[in-house]
Amino acid sequence: MKTEGGSDGAKRRAGERAAEDVEDGFVVGLGTGSTTAHAIRALGRAVDDGLEIRGIPTSFQSRRLALEVGIPLTDLDAVDGVDLAIDGADQVVDDPEGGSHGALIKGGGAAHAREKLIDAAADRFVVVADPSKLADRLERPVPVEVLPDARPVVAERLREMGGEPTLRDAERKDGPVVTDNGNLVFDCAFGAIDDPDALAARLSRIPGIVEHGLFVGLADATYVGSADGVSVRRY
Amino acid sequence: MKTEGGSDGAKRRAGERAAEDVEDGFVVGLGTGSTTAHAIRALGRAVDDGLEIRGIPTSFQSRRLALEVGIPLTDLDAVDGVDLAIDGADQVVDDPEGGSHGALIKGGGAAHAREKLIDAAADRFVVVADPSKLADRLERPVPVEVLPDARPVVAERLREMGGEPTLRDAERKDGPVVTDNGNLVFDCAFGAIDDPDALAARLSRIPGIVEHGLFVGLADATYVGSADGVSVRRY
Repeated sequence: MKTEGGSDGAKRRAGERAAEDVEDGFVVGLGTGSTTAHAIRALGRAVDDGLEIRGIPTSFQSRRLALEVGIPLTDLDAVDGVDLAIDGADQVVDDPEGGSHGALIKGGGAAHAREKLIDAAADRFVVVADPSKLADRLERPVPVEVLPDARPVVAERLREMGGEPTLRDAERKDGPVVTDNGNLVFDCAFGAIDDPDALAARLSRIPGIVEHGLFVGLADATYVGSADGVSVRRY
Repeated sequence: MKTEGGSDGAKRRAGERAAEDVEDGFVVGLGTGSTTAHAIRALGRAVDDGLEIRGIPTSFQSRRLALEVGIPLTDLDAVDGVDLAIDGADQVVDDPEGGSHGALIKGGGAAHAREKLIDAAADRFVVVADPSKLADRLERPVPVEVLPDARPVVAERLREMGGEPTLRDAERKDGPVVTDNGNLVFDCAFGAIDDPDALAARLSRIPGIVEHGLFVGLADATYVGSADGVSVRRY
């Protein structure tokens, strides 16, 4: 575990606050990333103290951490539903007056297809973040998972829509990143995204796109950790 | 090649008529199914006679047939575009007064993700069919390709939408059909589909669905073979 203070302290506070929402008997979606990792570790300690839960990891990374801290695991086909999903985000709209409040971008870790599946399946989806993730508008590149064959066609369609797709290159392997589903990832810059819901709908309909990293209308709350506490946005 | 007459004669006429649209220098999307197979065979004969084209198969099956009849093959990342795609359909809306004229269902062969990719990429997409494929409204089950992990969640979402999903079982292997992309297939009955475009948009946004078999707004024409000729619908 990293040292406390600064950004990691903010992440820890957000993650631990989300873990407090987990009740006995819950099925919990366990998301990916450094902030969610704090929630998973807190849940591991609660399990040590007698909390009875089952976790469903959204990625290889979160699965490994959950096993390490002793959270019993299950899978979507073995449960009736997911009570709560806790997951991070690359960027979250923080604009209470606007229509996109709580829309977010995920997929920096290329796990967004399974993340969206589990976050969307949950009765309640709580985002954990530090203040650096909040923005008036989404403007980070949107990760787009594509079937390998679809790469050139999808790239052209994204450019027609005004996007600038970049195939994500791997490190520690030659060539592109390959997702856990065996697909490729574009990071597609659209500039500032005025209407994430409309963009999400358009991306979803493009043949060859397996899943994109725009999560619109899915989050129920964001817990934002800071140097001295946690502030909560509810949607 | 099957004997002529009856249904196979109708299919042959439709396929051969579509092959006549192919011009020297074309990149041609080569679809899947018994009617398209007639187009591929006709193109093979034209290549023997000197027509210079390159084919992009939509499936393992059409690739094998194209190789057998001597059509030079290429792939999407090696060309600037696809001039014409020829492909079959499981059902096509034939309703010139209605808003869904030319909407269709594909995916009986579980290849609809790559088929849609190539059909949508083509400058022109011609459907080849016999009269048994035409209907006032789409009412066949819609094939839905899903990430394996997503099976239970997607099934629940489809039921919420009024669908009846059935996991497609394989023959000559135990368990379910696995697509060329490594995914699973639901055949989802929705009854008669009044608004294919709206249903397509909803299906596209469900996390875990890789691609569905509703092709709306993609076909430019359908060539319908019959006992004594070919009638053409243009959209």
